[in-house]
Amino acid sequence: MKQFQAIRQAAYEANMQLPALGLVLFTFGNVSAADRAAGVFAIKPSGVPYSNLSPDAMVVVDFNGKVVDGTLRPSSDTLTHAVLYKHWENIGGIVHTHSTYATAWAQSQRDIPIYGTTHADHNTIDIPCATPMSDDLIAGNYEYQTGFQIMKALSDRSLTYEEIEMILVGNHAPFTWAATPAKAVYNSAVLEEIAKMAYLTEAINLQAPRLKDALIRKHYERKHGPDSYYGQ
Amino acid sequence: MKQFQAIRQAAYEANMQLPALGLVLFTFGNVSAADRAAGVFAIKPSGVPYSNLSPDAMVVVDFNGKVVDGTLRPSSDTLTHAVLYKHWENIGGIVHTHSTYATAWAQSQRDIPIYGTTHADHNTIDIPCATPMSDDLIAGNYEYQTGFQIMKALSDRSLTYEEIEMILVGNHAPFTWAATPAKAVYNSAVLEEIAKMAYLTEAINLQAPRLKDALIRKHYERKHGPDSYYGQ
Amino acid sequence: MKQFQAIRQAAYEANMQLPALGLVLFTFGNVSAADRAAGVFAIKPSGVPYSNLSPDAMVVVDFNGKVVDGTLRPSSDTLTHAVLYKHWENIGGIVHTHSTYATAWAQSQRDIPIYGTTHADHNTIDIPCATPMSDDLIAGNYEYQTGFQIMKALSDRSLTYEEIEMILVGNHAPFTWAATPAKAVYNSAVLEEIAKMAYLTEAINLQAPRLKDALIRKHYERKHGPDSYYGQ
Amino acid sequence: MKQFQAIRQAAYEANMQLPALGLVLFTFGNVSAADRAAGVFAIKPSGVPYSNLSPDAMVVVDFNGKVVDGTLRPSSDTLTHAVLYKHWENIGGIVHTHSTYATAWAQSQRDIPIYGTTHADHNTIDIPCATPMSDDLIAGNYEYQTGFQIMKALSDRSLTYEEIEMILVGNHAPFTWAATPAKAVYNSAVLEEIAKMAYLTEAINLQAPRLKDALIRKHYERKHGPDSYYGQ
Repeated sequence: MKQFQAIRQAAYEANMQLPALGLVLFTFGNVSAADRAAGVFAIKPSGVPYSNLSPDAMVVVDFNGKVVDGTLRPSSDTLTHAVLYKHWENIGGIVHTHSTYATAWAQSQRDIPIYGTTHADHNTIDIPCATPMSDDLIAGNYEYQTGFQIMKALSDRSLTYEEIEMILVGNHAPFTWAATPAKAVYNSAVLEEIAKMAYLTEAINLQAPRLKDALIRKHYERKHGPDSYYGQ
Repeated sequence: MKQFQAIRQAAYEANMQLPALGLVLFTFGNVSAADRAAGVFAIKPSGVPYSNLSPDAMVVVDFNGKVVDGTLRPSSDTLTHAVLYKHWENIGGIVHTHSTYATAWAQSQRDIPIYGTTHADHNTIDIPCATPMSDDLIAGNYEYQTGFQIMKALSDRSLTYEEIEMILVGNHAPFTWAATPAKAVYNSAVLEEIAKMAYLTEAINLQAPRLKDALIRKHYERKHGPDSYYGQ
Repeated sequence: MKQFQAIRQAAYEANMQLPALGLVLFTFGNVSAADRAAGVFAIKPSGVPYSNLSPDAMVVVDFNGKVVDGTLRPSSDTLTHAVLYKHWENIGGIVHTHSTYATAWAQSQRDIPIYGTTHADHNTIDIPCATPMSDDLIAGNYEYQTGFQIMKALSDRSLTYEEIEMILVGNHAPFTWAATPAKAVYNSAVLEEIAKMAYLTEAINLQAPRLKDALIRKHYERKHGPDSYYGQ
Repeated sequence: MKQFQAIRQAAYEANMQLPALGLVLFTFGNVSAADRAAGVFAIKPSGVPYSNLSPDAMVVVDFNGKVVDGTLRPSSDTLTHAVLYKHWENIGGIVHTHSTYATAWAQSQRDIPIYGTTHADHNTIDIPCATPMSDDLIAGNYEYQTGFQIMKALSDRSLTYEEIEMILVGNHAPFTWAATPAKAVYNSAVLEEIAKMAYLTEAINLQAPRLKDALIRKHYERKHGPDSYYGQ
């Protein structure tokens, strides 16, 4: 039996959710699934159409980005995944897409304001948009630096990766993460919907107010707080 | 045979219409179906994906929000449904969604102006957007208060729940209701379409006039008046 | 064999194209098919869901709006169809929808400017938006008057129904027509696409110029002129 | 066996991708596939619905636009394809669509600014919008001149057809090309997505900055440069 079958399967299934949820055109996205005990993650091979994927096609890579198992070349964004897994001990899945509305916000270089409870059900703050990195870093180990760009955007806002599981990389596109790859994909779909709603909200009322703190706290707490009462 | 089979079946079928009509992402919505004689309603269980639902999974609750039958936890919005059923004697179904365009209007905290006959075929007035509730109410029994927030928005406008079967809860999302759960789902789909058309109307002509009274009356009356001639 | 089988079948098939092309929500649209020799047309029954339609369900009506054959009540817009068939001798099909973008333009009470060749492939002029009718006409025989409202909008612009096969009824929604019901449905889909493109064109460039005359003529002539070379 | 089977098959398959990718309404688009050795290309017949196409229905034409094989009339845009094949020696496929967002930019007569890495993954420059041609050229051999209009727009910007594989024809709609018809279809879908993202980017932030040079170079090089590391 092929090694790392569990994360290959998890990464495969999560990757296949991206086209099913309308989050990717062609190969513009990738999901990885980590095996914390083994210190590796399985990730989509680079440039392979989703219809040609299989668990065996996934590439297994360690947290330094070295291929451990697999015959194909891993996603060109592999080093970004590796950096985040290495520094964030409690995540088990990462997603990168170029979903339309989230990418438009990233290109606009604006944080997505928290305008309603759909947003507050998932986050208590605006979705951060990381500042584009400096030219010398871009010319260097770009994908590796993208990981640090994401971490810096959080630390600049005094946020931990456990408080917010999604970000926009300025001029580029969104990344999301979570304890599992399936949950990270869920976060990508939620982000896309929040991005679309926020765009429409401003189009309908340019003076739309941010959600007030009491509603932010209430909606977040009822889903995620110690006394949460959402779900089974 | 399982108790309350009729409302379980009706609630199940109406809930399944939400993803079919494109009104929900993941579990962001719920429908309930009331049995007036028994003084209870069946509602979607909290956080359960639509693809996993069945009539038996529905939770039966009384009009005070107490679970009467069922093993799962009911929707986190159950108390809002309970309050409305308790106060509005002639409704048999309630729907809550976060449908994209209606939610964007709710986040914008604007009533949806009546711009055309598609709107007038269903309502003679602007769709109300209820003002967000005060912080102390939010911190209290939030979902229970949401029911009163909706009723207050109607009474502030001297409207009855029979004159208008849809509302936006400011910063949150829409609720609709009707004599049956199927009709309440229909109202949610109509509201989403009206919300999208109104957004586009203002984008095309910022000075677009409200529909004049003669057209409002004519279109509403031909569908709902004493001499209506629409339908079979 | 049921009478008027050919127009029943044609009307049925054309009506079923409306949901297939995404032009209607629920029952918000209708198509009719005329039999010129018999002086009648078959039209969708009022308020019946598309999924329940059949050729036999169509209602056959004469050009004065009197039901000639069929057990169901005809579309509430039947008198508008009747008036147009009576006055326009060369049309064989009429469509009414509330398609989203065309309806938004109608609600905006603006003609759709001719911005590109997609428009010019089908019309040489802006799509007219008929002025809402006066209150006394609305209170009278409304659907009958809608037919005259459409004809007046054309004559005000010195247009014949053969030069343009589509119109927006101000505050209401579009009507289209053609030699056959299938072609009239085609016109409705084209109108919706033109309406969406024109909306986006203005959003991208508020100063976007109208298409110049040479391009209007060229594109229209190559499809519809005496020396047309489009199609087989 | 029918002549030119390979390009008939390639053109057929590429044409069928247009409706599958949501790039055409009805017959508003066409793809051709060239056989460089034979000096001919296979192209969609004019005005034939996609559902009725087959490899045998394709029309084979030489680089002067003369039909070489096939019983149907070729696309009305055939001469544009012929001119481009004649002048651009290294392309094997051309696509023309009226896809919604790209056409809206063409109607707006604006180049599409490079706002993000989705764009830079495919091009290092703004997508050119060719100026509408002069009235005398329109009145002359219009489709033939459209080929020269496209080539002029590139030479005005000192671009070769190998540096950019997509263009907007002002007031009209997009054309794309590539070494193969499948890749040219890919380019059409990418262009439509870039066009939609750029529209949304400006709507979200009217002051959105163009992508900076370091990111343009990095993203383009990692996919297309001598040291590219995208794909297998």
